[in-house]
Amino acid sequence: MAFTPTTYDPYDFANRRHIGPSPSEMEDMLQAVGVTSLAALIEETIPASIRQEKPLSWEPLAEHELLDRMRAVAAKNKVMTSLIGQGYYGTVTPPAIQRNILENPAWYTAYTPYQPEIAQGRLEALLNYQTMVCDLTGLDVANASLLDEATAAAEAMVMAQRLAKSRAGAFFVDENCHPQTIAVIRTRALPLGIEVIVAAPEALEPGAVFGAIFQYPGTHGHVRDFTDAIAALHAAKAVAIVATDLLALCVLKEPGAMGADIAVGSAQRFGVPMGYGGPHAAFMACKDDMKRQMPGRIVGVSIDARGNKAYRLSLQTREQHIRREKATSNVCTAQALLAVMASFYAVFHGPKGLRAIAERVHLNTTRVAEALKAAGAKVAPDAFFDTITVEVGVGQAGIMAAARHRGINLRKVGRDRVGISLDETTSEDVIRRLLDAFGITDAAPAPHGPGVPDALLRMSEYLTHPVFQMNRAESEMMRYMRRLSDRDLALDRAMIPLGSCTMKLNAAAEMMPITWPEFGALHPFCPPDQAAGYREAIADLAAKLCEITGYDAFSMQPNSGAQGEYAGLLTIQAYHRARGEAHRDICLIPVSAHGTNPASAQMCGMKVVVVKSSPNGDVDVEDFRAKAEAAGDRLAACMITYPSTHGVFEETVREICDITHQFGGQVYIDGANMNAMVGLVKPGEIGGDVSHLNLHKTFAIPHGGGGPGMGPIGVRAHLAPYLPGHPETGGEEGPVSAAPYGSASILLISWAYCLMMGGAGLTQATRVAILNANYIAARLRGAYQVLFMGNRGRVAHECILDTRPFAEAGVTVDDIAKRLIDNGFHAPTMSWPVAGTLMVEPTESETKAEIDRFITALLAIRAEIAAVEAGEISAEDSPLRHAPHTVEDLVADWTRTYSREQGCFPAGAFRVDKYWPPVGRIDNVYGDRNLICTCPPLEDYAQAAE
Amino acid sequence: MAFTPTTYDPYDFANRRHIGPSPSEMEDMLQAVGVTSLAALIEETIPASIRQEKPLSWEPLAEHELLDRMRAVAAKNKVMTSLIGQGYYGTVTPPAIQRNILENPAWYTAYTPYQPEIAQGRLEALLNYQTMVCDLTGLDVANASLLDEATAAAEAMVMAQRLAKSRAGAFFVDENCHPQTIAVIRTRALPLGIEVIVAAPEALEPGAVFGAIFQYPGTHGHVRDFTDAIAALHAAKAVAIVATDLLALCVLKEPGAMGADIAVGSAQRFGVPMGYGGPHAAFMACKDDMKRQMPGRIVGVSIDARGNKAYRLSLQTREQHIRREKATSNVCTAQALLAVMASFYAVFHGPKGLRAIAERVHLNTTRVAEALKAAGAKVAPDAFFDTITVEVGVGQAGIMAAARHRGINLRKVGRDRVGISLDETTSEDVIRRLLDAFGITDAAPAPHGPGVPDALLRMSEYLTHPVFQMNRAESEMMRYMRRLSDRDLALDRAMIPLGSCTMKLNAAAEMMPITWPEFGALHPFCPPDQAAGYREAIADLAAKLCEITGYDAFSMQPNSGAQGEYAGLLTIQAYHRARGEAHRDICLIPVSAHGTNPASAQMCGMKVVVVKSSPNGDVDVEDFRAKAEAAGDRLAACMITYPSTHGVFEETVREICDITHQFGGQVYIDGANMNAMVGLVKPGEIGGDVSHLNLHKTFAIPHGGGGPGMGPIGVRAHLAPYLPGHPETGGEEGPVSAAPYGSASILLISWAYCLMMGGAGLTQATRVAILNANYIAARLRGAYQVLFMGNRGRVAHECILDTRPFAEAGVTVDDIAKRLIDNGFHAPTMSWPVAGTLMVEPTESETKAEIDRFITALLAIRAEIAAVEAGEISAEDSPLRHAPHTVEDLVADWTRTYSREQGCFPAGAFRVDKYWPPVGRIDNVYGDRNLICTCPPLEDYAQAAE
Repeated sequence: MAFTPTTYDPYDFANRRHIGPSPSEMEDMLQAVGVTSLAALIEETIPASIRQEKPLSWEPLAEHELLDRMRAVAAKNKVMTSLIGQGYYGTVTPPAIQRNILENPAWYTAYTPYQPEIAQGRLEALLNYQTMVCDLTGLDVANASLLDEATAAAEAMVMAQRLAKSRAGAFFVDENCHPQTIAVIRTRALPLGIEVIVAAPEALEPGAVFGAIFQYPGTHGHVRDFTDAIAALHAAKAVAIVATDLLALCVLKEPGAMGADIAVGSAQRFGVPMGYGGPHAAFMACKDDMKRQMPGRIVGVSIDARGNKAYRLSLQTREQHIRREKATSNVCTAQALLAVMASFYAVFHGPKGLRAIAERVHLNTTRVAEALKAAGAKVAPDAFFDTITVEVGVGQAGIMAAARHRGINLRKVGRDRVGISLDETTSEDVIRRLLDAFGITDAAPAPHGPGVPDALLRMSEYLTHPVFQMNRAESEMMRYMRRLSDRDLALDRAMIPLGSCTMKLNAAAEMMPITWPEFGALHPFCPPDQAAGYREAIADLAAKLCEITGYDAFSMQPNSGAQGEYAGLLTIQAYHRARGEAHRDICLIPVSAHGTNPASAQMCGMKVVVVKSSPNGDVDVEDFRAKAEAAGDRLAACMITYPSTHGVFEETVREICDITHQFGGQVYIDGANMNAMVGLVKPGEIGGDVSHLNLHKTFAIPHGGGGPGMGPIGVRAHLAPYLPGHPETGGEEGPVSAAPYGSASILLISWAYCLMMGGAGLTQATRVAILNANYIAARLRGAYQVLFMGNRGRVAHECILDTRPFAEAGVTVDDIAKRLIDNGFHAPTMSWPVAGTLMVEPTESETKAEIDRFITALLAIRAEIAAVEAGEISAEDSPLRHAPHTVEDLVADWTRTYSREQGCFPAGAFRVDKYWPPVGRIDNVYGDRNLICTCPPLEDYAQAAE
Repeated sequence: MAFTPTTYDPYDFANRRHIGPSPSEMEDMLQAVGVTSLAALIEETIPASIRQEKPLSWEPLAEHELLDRMRAVAAKNKVMTSLIGQGYYGTVTPPAIQRNILENPAWYTAYTPYQPEIAQGRLEALLNYQTMVCDLTGLDVANASLLDEATAAAEAMVMAQRLAKSRAGAFFVDENCHPQTIAVIRTRALPLGIEVIVAAPEALEPGAVFGAIFQYPGTHGHVRDFTDAIAALHAAKAVAIVATDLLALCVLKEPGAMGADIAVGSAQRFGVPMGYGGPHAAFMACKDDMKRQMPGRIVGVSIDARGNKAYRLSLQTREQHIRREKATSNVCTAQALLAVMASFYAVFHGPKGLRAIAERVHLNTTRVAEALKAAGAKVAPDAFFDTITVEVGVGQAGIMAAARHRGINLRKVGRDRVGISLDETTSEDVIRRLLDAFGITDAAPAPHGPGVPDALLRMSEYLTHPVFQMNRAESEMMRYMRRLSDRDLALDRAMIPLGSCTMKLNAAAEMMPITWPEFGALHPFCPPDQAAGYREAIADLAAKLCEITGYDAFSMQPNSGAQGEYAGLLTIQAYHRARGEAHRDICLIPVSAHGTNPASAQMCGMKVVVVKSSPNGDVDVEDFRAKAEAAGDRLAACMITYPSTHGVFEETVREICDITHQFGGQVYIDGANMNAMVGLVKPGEIGGDVSHLNLHKTFAIPHGGGGPGMGPIGVRAHLAPYLPGHPETGGEEGPVSAAPYGSASILLISWAYCLMMGGAGLTQATRVAILNANYIAARLRGAYQVLFMGNRGRVAHECILDTRPFAEAGVTVDDIAKRLIDNGFHAPTMSWPVAGTLMVEPTESETKAEIDRFITALLAIRAEIAAVEAGEISAEDSPLRHAPHTVEDLVADWTRTYSREQGCFPAGAFRVDKYWPPVGRIDNVYGDRNLICTCPPLEDYAQAAE
């Protein structure tokens, strides 16, 4: 054939699909920025001294090649029936929920609902979650999820310490707690100086502790009434915590009825696949008078500008401006997507369905127990819900092998017992195979004999709210899910230019494997050979992250960025301790740091010393040096963010690292801004000793409406021995998460991203992220003041717009943020790192067209501000203040001084495809004054359909 | 444990998920209907004489059990690399398209876009498809897809006969057409008396034919220039058709440039999985002056009430009121969802990407050909695109086995050749394995030597329209798909009460398996042992359909309802012919029949005799008897619909069947209304000899916005030998579809539906479908006149509302239909089977709440009509006439005599979650006068973003 084939590669994922601007668009953008090439821009942006030139090594895969590879890796995992229990259970994810939530970008690409007007759908789903948790635990207030059951238990311990009037210094842990829960509590207690007493509940001495946690049902199945123990704790002014199981509570007496102050647990078995450890939503509920001490996000009910019901995050100041060095928790990311799934599982089944499922699980367990007893086995406990242990003596290995041979994993308990936990997926066939492994071939006898004493049966109603009483036909459910998602604005409709949050594309190919059963159905503690695919994926991801960061080892355990910080600091502490320098306890943190930094240091028992900023926003090197000197041999670490939270590559980073090392400290580089560095700068080579990476920022895990996230940490070789261990896998130091690899299943997303991008694609993505940010800065300069440029007038991957000059005219940063909703955009990050500013991060995935639409919107807003400044209209009367505009505004009588057209269709807004917020501006003060954190009553719902 | 377990089964798919009303809702509904029980209602609705009492036999599966079963069946299919070609090719479905279109209920649950105001999204996607087909074929007008390439070719033949000025009676078929194409053409030609001449192109005698079809590239790879042959045909006043391949046309001279009048082919390889035969979109394009003879749907551009651009189906009268007994085609269902996928594939890659893909396929083919030649093999043809044949002599079986051993299927060609067709999935590894099968172990040499003569290279541009020049980043693509789907109203947002179309739930669990590679990646002509899973599924589905219908055998070949009718009549004809009664040529059809009935009879060369209706809408038995008597031994068949198209179980059905049989005819019972019978009435037992089932109505295949569908036919034993055969599987009579099992992959949906419902669940669904319809009739009676009740005042599964009484006040059926959009509903079927009526079919899947919302809307509309009748407002000024109301209406100055509130939020409309149509009422006349059937120019797009 005569044609000369083109060199165009249609399967180039990085340049064709992931990176937004096309080559010709980039040309135009470079011109607007005023540089001749992308290389020249990088030259001007990143100091030569820290740039590294060696390209990342691996070649990219096309999307279909990625899926082939993933299928091959999936085939190396072995899907068995897990009866291991220990906090992870088989569950049936209703297909309608899988398809319409977990596989739907409208849900999984959404951001945390800080802008409630564009997040009413997921806020309602999370409120349903809170209501479900309150009802089932019998407590007053629940939060909208925590990371996992073990960290929730550790959070509860610290909360108890704050709340208890007892001055005792110890914390009691029921030995029937899951081993990983006990281990994570120990990890958390150590730096805080809390003594942890692990013993049988009978051994509790209430006067000796500020609080206690009991597991109910216990890890080996025991179902006990803790009413008396809790009363004794209360008498001693201590706080009582119950770690519990939502399914069990559908038939068992609820912790609230026993008097518990706090309940924690996992909502995994409400329809969320085990995923080799996560992600799943943990829950926490407490009594009403304790709610202001509860960590995590709480959804509450308020009203909008028209007085209509509207949801929002309550007590929100705790969140964005975490208490910093006064913090008691660094919880930031939640497990929103999984909490949404669990809440829909409850809506899907309703109380009747949940009770039937719980009964079925219990009756099957009873049948198995009776069959084993009939065959002469010694089975414990007498009172159980879904878990029993069987004494098997020296036959333990044989029984476990026999079960495995029949496709079943049992739990190894001690040296002579096996644990059996049934769940809703336990079929007749599984029971038959299970009994067969014990040599019992008769059909299981009909259930009889009490598994639970009458006093422990649940007597109260639950899930009485109308949302859980809906008609549960799939048509109705599907439409409810659609309606909620339509109320929200996620990445599938518009860019989300959130500074520091890197809302990049979550490609479909990256998301597909996580719902394959070969990845979803694995228990985190299954025999290692059954997870060979996972281990291959995790090892390869770790190798690539090492190459990217210049570190020598990675721990995948931390399941959020803040957990990563905490784990990194613990690693540093362990290193100092091992060298006999346990006295090092000072952590230097710049004033501009993200609030989680000092919070994490605080959790490690470190003393936070704050370092000043120079007027240009950089770390003040002289102040840093002075404070390092002052710390002297007490210097444990410094925590810096690079490029800085101001979005600038500071020239002095090596100097800061050197000073720290000079005084014997270790350098923690926060990886939140890694998206500005991949392929160009390695934190491990510029002086960092440890960093966490936010895989949900830089490495394409979707934000899920407020989680999941993953915050693995990379370390240089000298710190590798001190990375978090785990009771199930061994290791030197204590675990920070319930599962060895944290939320393992979503590591696949980041791995897929790395594989498809290739080393060169990742590096190009970094360059384009910087180009996109500089393009915005260049286009908006003049209209807005852009703060914190580098020496050569460039920003990194984000830029900060100053809105304080508009204050005189009465226009607030809130007005701008809400007005952007009228344009169909999520607002940038507000008032962080500097109050009265907007931090814009476009990421590399946004096209010039979308960025231009955003710029058009911001310029139009600036013109509206100018009209206020010129006195043509007052701020109160302006479309800025009335934003966002709703359909209700249009339908009602129009008394504004501007037109409907101007109000609803500002420049940049789509016309036919406009996003309409379901509520007007939400009243935060009202919401905090009238804190309602469960579903509002029926009447409020009726109006929706009118 | 003391609790008594409930009998509530949370996994009962039929009663918990599929069937809408809950038991307590049903109680309320029965009361409104005025019967004591569901059984009593059925008693009053279905004549006892035809009811059968034996329950359907099989037990239901839960959703998770279904998916387990499906996985086990999938594992029995063997996914090999197919190099078979012959019209089906490996293709890479872009994951973003799979996730956002094929797995997205907003796309797959949509109905055919007859109501264009709520279908602008899919109409735009289909217009893109038409534009793509026009561009690539070089012709002026394309339709919005046909069923498959073979039927498209047969349609083209009939179209050519209509168009040709030549009076010749023969049709020439290039022997290089795919064998299944030739076979389907022969099937179609036989009853029409067309002589089919199959020969090499050189043998064409233009004067002897009214038309000719050439395949380009040919089935064995030949690439020829047909310019001269086409000119010769034109000189003889004959019509020239080219069957072609869209990917090849990205580098080869287009048929339009050769002078072709019509082009047909398959768009399968544009991202649609092979699926063991389908569904895929076939295409047809023609010259502008032929467009009014083109079968199928054509999307055109018109304007709405404000003069804004709006899409609609053009030439629409052809569609809903098919030409009946004057018909030349019975095409009704298209392959809309697959056409949408193919069009997005083109948008996704753009012309540059498509060309690169085509070039790569061609260069790889050249490399393989050269390597084979270098090894001494005889390879044909000299000019090829992606397909070559290799002479292998007696080694044929050995080579094919060697290839299979290496995971590759080759095509068996004659007794001594093998065919090789490459595609975009052909990797280096596949080439290596392929050559290895021929004993060639050297790396394939670099490509050289012309595969295509210069004169056949494509010289013209294509896909120059902006939509194909979009930035192709996934963020942009995902948002474009979302924006389009948001413009449409599908089952995921509201009920679609379309009479005769049975828009029931398409459950997520039913849809999941079809995107598994074990089902998607199979070639329809792969070795049977590789499709063992498919065959198990199809056999079990057939067995269940036999039990449901009372027939003895099923053919799964017809891939639409109309194809089923046609296949059924051909089966009857073959039966008569085999008995020496070929002279039987009269088909009795009631006047109320669906338009496809007479059209199908016409296609079979039968003479249609129309039978009158009684005043109550039933078939006039006396007229029927008289016409059967008159036909005498010419009576071939009758075609009736049961329950009738009027929605009534006629008492006389057995009598009509008996009369037909008495005169030697066969009874065709149209299965369109099977949803009123499953489990209660068996057409094969009340007198039917053959029926088609619309699996996309009764058996839960989604409508996909206008296809796919499936229309398998069941027959009694005496007709079984005459069911359609297929060249790839043998069989007595000619095929009606390109693939032996039609659109095989979506049979899995119906199978899944049957498996999860169980026999009892299916039967209960029928009862509830009847209850829902009677509830609507009961609630609306008084406000509207309900036409055609049965003897005891009951309707079947649908009810007809008379709107003709409102004509005097000037209110039309259109006004009501469009006003329903303001309420967030798709209109019922309009003016069918009786002009000026609305036919409402709620199906069993709708809940009482949703039905009540619909009733509320219709009652509010009735009140608005009353206001017009009372002279309070004129029809012209009423909200009825201005419906649907858009955001543009709200934003603009409001000069109406009713309020914005009344206009936009009529009773029954959601408030927060309201669906806003993107356009106002569309001007049909304008659209037909100004027929534009490709994408409008750029300027029209610019406005959208303003």
